[in-house]
Order: sequence, then structure tokens, then C-alpha cells
Amino acid sequence: MADLHALMKKLQKKNDSKIVLLVSDGLGGLPLEPGGKTELETANTPNLDALAKKGTLGRSIPVIPGITPGSGPGHLGLFGYDPLEFNIGRGVLEALGIDFELGPDDVAIRGNFCTLDDDGKITDRRAGRIPSEVGAELCKKLDKIEIPGVEVFVRHVKEYRLVIVLRAKGLGGDINDTDPQKTGVPPLEPVGQNEASAKTAVLCKEFLKQAGEILKDDHPANLLTMRGIAKMPEIPTFEEVYGTRAAAVAVYPMYRGLARLVSMDVKDAGQTLESQMDCLEKIWDDYDFFFVHYKYTDSTGEDGNFDAKVARTEDVDTCIPRITALNPDVLIVTGDHSTPAKMKSHSWHPVPVLLSAENARFDGCQSFGESECIQGGLGQFEAKYLMWLAMAHAGRLEKYGA
Amino acid sequence: MADLHALMKKLQKKNDSKIVLLVSDGLGGLPLEPGGKTELETANTPNLDALAKKGTLGRSIPVIPGITPGSGPGHLGLFGYDPLEFNIGRGVLEALGIDFELGPDDVAIRGNFCTLDDDGKITDRRAGRIPSEVGAELCKKLDKIEIPGVEVFVRHVKEYRLVIVLRAKGLGGDINDTDPQKTGVPPLEPVGQNEASAKTAVLCKEFLKQAGEILKDDHPANLLTMRGIAKMPEIPTFEEVYGTRAAAVAVYPMYRGLARLVSMDVKDAGQTLESQMDCLEKIWDDYDFFFVHYKYTDSTGEDGNFDAKVARTEDVDTCIPRITALNPDVLIVTGDHSTPAKMKSHSWHPVPVLLSAENARFDGCQSFGESECIQGGLGQFEAKYLMWLAMAHAGRLEKYGA
Repeated sequence: MADLHALMKKLQKKNDSKIVLLVSDGLGGLPLEPGGKTELETANTPNLDALAKKGTLGRSIPVIPGITPGSGPGHLGLFGYDPLEFNIGRGVLEALGIDFELGPDDVAIRGNFCTLDDDGKITDRRAGRIPSEVGAELCKKLDKIEIPGVEVFVRHVKEYRLVIVLRAKGLGGDINDTDPQKTGVPPLEPVGQNEASAKTAVLCKEFLKQAGEILKDDHPANLLTMRGIAKMPEIPTFEEVYGTRAAAVAVYPMYRGLARLVSMDVKDAGQTLESQMDCLEKIWDDYDFFFVHYKYTDSTGEDGNFDAKVARTEDVDTCIPRITALNPDVLIVTGDHSTPAKMKSHSWHPVPVLLSAENARFDGCQSFGESECIQGGLGQFEAKYLMWLAMAHAGRLEKYGA
Repeated sequence: MADLHALMKKLQKKNDSKIVLLVSDGLGGLPLEPGGKTELETANTPNLDALAKKGTLGRSIPVIPGITPGSGPGHLGLFGYDPLEFNIGRGVLEALGIDFELGPDDVAIRGNFCTLDDDGKITDRRAGRIPSEVGAELCKKLDKIEIPGVEVFVRHVKEYRLVIVLRAKGLGGDINDTDPQKTGVPPLEPVGQNEASAKTAVLCKEFLKQAGEILKDDHPANLLTMRGIAKMPEIPTFEEVYGTRAAAVAVYPMYRGLARLVSMDVKDAGQTLESQMDCLEKIWDDYDFFFVHYKYTDSTGEDGNFDAKVARTEDVDTCIPRITALNPDVLIVTGDHSTPAKMKSHSWHPVPVLLSAENARFDGCQSFGESECIQGGLGQFEAKYLMWLAMAHAGRLEKYGA
């Protein structure tokens, strides 16, 4: 396989074009019954349909056929980073998502406050879903933990969730989760899979020991489990690869973290689609590439709420006129994966792609939906090629060869 | 390229699902005239069409676009082994197909009895297609050949066809066929392409010399040619890769051999589609994955008999209700390659794929045929990804990444 990033760096050129990548998370769906319509097909989406009529549709395979991606691989693919090549640990994503500036010596750990009984067995893996104020207070206490030879950072994320970062030379990140994924059993011991990770595992144990002391009177949050223990991967920046100034207009920490991972500028986009559109308008002149992320098509799908996913899809449609009013040269609307309400989970199904641009090849498609996308002019392609299409339609790629 | 087998081993999980892969050999075809229908489209296939309406269709590229595969690469692709990575010699396939247990030190050779004239030139490359009884007797005589330092096995296959196995440490399998592919010339000399194979070539010459002596009065079968000289490839087992207990319900030796190559359990399935269905029903509770192979859509295609291929396709359709009555979680009907009667040979054309499963995405296709498959929701994909789709639809894959 050719090194596609090296090739992109060679072929990319700069111009004044603007590219918007609107990711409606988990966009692809399934009909509830054979012969029925998917969430996207059920939704009333006049603005997306108008774009589909003029533009071109297609289907993106997030990783390879059959693979259901998590949010990390799903977004890396859309950003043009082969998700089989770049593997991002959950702890790293979580740390990036709360604006923690991870360095190369850091091991990031996702923590969940949990409840232990007197026998040391977990009775609640989420500590009764304590409110964020309580979680934040407990994290302040844990942040005082000191372990010789290592810097320790504890940061609160939300409710029962936190991030721990261990900073020291020579630590590895290949360690199992201590969350046993069930109740009635004690947490698992952290075990390193290699020498460097064994060093980290010793630190994790010491941290958990001290945390147990500190939290012993804080029932229901009297301990925490560790998950997704990982180091930062080495990853080229988005600007280096594409030569674009890129901004992320995302609300959720995870997706802000993913954008930060490839060194996009992560903007303050508020908490709603409206505030995201405000942000987009405000920064329009300052960037070439805009990653806009909308979470709720995924979360409603995960909830198994078909009608709510339809409604959230209609919300996405509603924001389209504010984007097209900015006159982007390329507007792509897609998802990082499918999340069919019928399955209440991410899935492997191809993801609908809509590409609107002056030189998009007309394909006769009349609306934006899974079945129309089968007929789409972009065909079916691996997500890692989407940025190539974006750059091409933006006139940002030189000819390859003479 | 990431190691897909390593990834599959990591992502596969076990559940109670059942997967049936029904391979109608050479299924893909061509219309006799532009605008006409293919064999599959001409056949009356109400059961397959009913599955197509509810399920999803697609097209499989056996190797890469344009490559016409033999049975070996065709099936390896379907089993999820990259046919460009795993190269199986014909001699190996033939030996596996007659239940010969090949070991790592074995070189397997496919033999054809042939007729030599007094000048040592071949006058018939198949020795007048001697009956199987005669071929079997001659093989018994040849099995007595002794060569110092090597174990020699000679086994009859059918009519003029046999298998020779040479067993000794340090033998190579990179040797040309001795069959000159035409008459009026002597057999070719076996030549090894490397040091280990040169050792084997010496043994082949010695074997052929002794065989000439033994067969000199057995006209028309007074010698044999050697073809497909090869060693066993190192290949991970199907169970190791997918975590499924897999059974092969195949009649023809070649396909039983291919299944054995990846360590499927090869069952006694009788000689007909009916006996294969009996077998399937009988072993249903004992396995997770069932490879059912039907030969005659290929052989009628090879014969150039369009109508017979249509009739054999209808036979496949007839067995569908017995499969669906078992209520498999995933049923895939496809071929290992196309064999258009119009071409009287295997071809490179994409192969129709039908996938029936609860979470297959509805795609509006109304019948099972090449043209409908172009509109199919699975799109066009390399055969090596088919098992990923099978595993995904069976709920046997974990999510990739967080």
C-alpha cells in the first residue's frame, strides 16, 4: 500500500476554498421492517434533499466491510487517517476531550467512580451516577495523590467519569481495564503486557490503593475503576497532511478530543446546533476546513429511539441553510458510522454520504437516504478516501503524474 | 495493510448464531445476447427471490477486478483468506480432496496417465480416459515404487488422474509441470526453481523413470505427467480465525480438500443436494458455520450448456426451504467465481451475493440476479471481506476501538 499521507502532502495545494465536513454521528440506520424506511429516509429533510438533487451521493465503509467502529476509528477514517493504522486508546480520547494537553510521556486513563461493598466487591459500576458537582469534588481530593517519580493528574469529566494522567519517562500503555464489566466481583488487577507497561501497572496499583483510602467515607463513590489505559499515538497533523487551517466546531468532549488529536483548532461552539452555527459564521474567514460534529443522531440511535433519531436528523436538516448561506466550496454531510435505532448500537452498515460542490458529478439521486445512496455517483468507498474527495472537489489537489 | 486475520481473531466473539455459506460454484453468468438475461436471471428461483426481497444483495470480486480465479483462490477468498497471499498448489488440493493427510514435509503432485508413442512423444494426454478401475490398478503398481531417502505414496483419484506424494525433509515445491499441454511432443523435464526444489526434481525424474518401466505394457496408460507440484502452505485454521466450529457439506473432492485445508470438519454428505441437506440437518446442532458446496452450476457453465446451468440453478433454489427451515442467523448464497456458459470457462465477472439476516439492510432488490445485485446494499467488495460481513450479521464481532 502506498503511503497515502505522503502522497497527499505532495499533491495538496492551497487556494481560497472552504470545506465543511458535517458529521451527524451514527447517521446510517436500518428500517424497522424489511421494505420500510430508515431513520434518515423517514425524516423530513428538504434542505438535505435539495443538496442531494444537485450534488452527488455515496456510501462510506468506516473501516472495512463488516467492522463496527467506535467513535475514534470512525472519525479518524473521516479525517483521512487509516483507522487500522492509527489506534487511539480511550483514555487518550477522554483526556483530549477535556482539554488536557497530553505529552509524549503521558499515560492517560479513563476512570469511573464505583461502589464497593465491605467485601471489596463492586455493587455499582457507576457509583449511583453521582452528580457532576460531587464527582468534581472527589477528583480534587484525588488530585492530591503523590507517587514518587511520577506526576499525577486527576481531572473530572462528567458525573461519575474522570481522567487520570501519569507522567513519567519510560511508561507503557498496554494494560488491561480494571473494570470487570459486571457487579458482584472485585475490580481486576492492572497487569502490564510488556516491561514498560508493567511499570505503569505498579503506579496504577499504588494510585488505586491511595484512592481507596481517600474515598473510603465517600460512599457510593468509594473507589474507581480504570479503563482504556493508553499513550498518545504518533500522528501527523491535519494541517501538515492537507495544508488547510482546520477548525473543529464540536460540543462533546470526545469529538473535540479527536479533532485535537490531529491538531485541529478546537473552537468554543457552545452547547447547541444553533451555537455551533454561530461559531461557524464567526470563524468562517479564519479557516479553510471546518469539522462540525452533531452527537444526537447517535445517542438517540443508541437509545433505540427511532422517532427521536428521526427528529434529531430533522434538526440537522434545519441547520443546513445557515451553512449553505456561507457558500462553502465543498459541503459533505455524513456520519462516522451507522447507529440503527433497531440495533441500539453502532453497526457496520455503510454510511450515507452527501457531497455538494460545483464540480460534483450529477447522479440523478433525488433525496438523501440509504437506498438513494446505493445509486450515488461516489459509489461505495472506505472512509479514509473521503478527504481525498473533499480536497479534489475543492480544487486543492495537483494532478498526479504527467 | 493491517493483518486482517490478527484483527479478526481479536474482534471475533462467540454466540449461538448459525451461519450458512452456500456456494453454488461458478454462479455468475452472462446473457447470450446483449439485453438478455444471465443463467441466474433466467432460472425460476422463487425461494432465492424471496430471500433477496427481505435481505441484501451485492457483488463479490473473487481476487481483484479482472482476475479469473481457479477453484482454490475462489474458495480461499470466500473463506476470508486473501488469495493473493495464500497460494495453494493444485497437487495439494488434489491430495486433500482424496482425504490424504498431508504433512509439512510433503510434496504433492497431481498426475495424469498419458500415452507415449515409440518415440517417447505424447499421443494422448489423458491415456484414452481409462476407466477408474484401470486407473486404480495402475496406481497400486506405482505405489510400490521405492526411492532411497524418501517415502513415496501413489493414490488414485478418478479415471486417468492420480496423486503422488513425496515425503522427506528439505524438499521444495517450486517445479514446473511435465505436462506439455499438447500432443506430439515428449513430456517436459521437471526442473526445480531453487535448491530445495531441485532435490525434488531429481526425485520426480527417478519416479518417472521407474513408472515408465512399470507401465511399459499398460498402453494406453504407459506413462504419466506431473502437474501442480506443491507443498502445503502455512495457513491458520478457520476456527482459530473465526472462533466458529465449521463443517463442510461438500460432495466433490476438490472442495472437501479446500475445506480441509483450513481445518473445517469435512462431513459425509453423500452425492446429491438432497443428501447434502440431510447431512446439514443432521449436524446442525454440532457446528456454528456450514460451508455447503454445489458443483453443477460450474460444470454446466464449463460445458457451455446455458439451459443446463439454468436447470442446475433451479436445483439450488429448490434446496433453500430446507436450509431456511433450520432458521440460520445468516444465510449467504454466492459463488466462488462466475462461469458463463457463453464463455465455457471460469471468468473474472463479479459474483452475485445474497445475504439474508435479521439486520441486513433492506435495499429494495426484488430478485436474485446479476443486474439486481448491482443495486444491492452490500455494493461491490472483494470476496475476502465476505466473512467479515457474515460475522458482523451474526453478531460475532466486537466493536473496533472506542
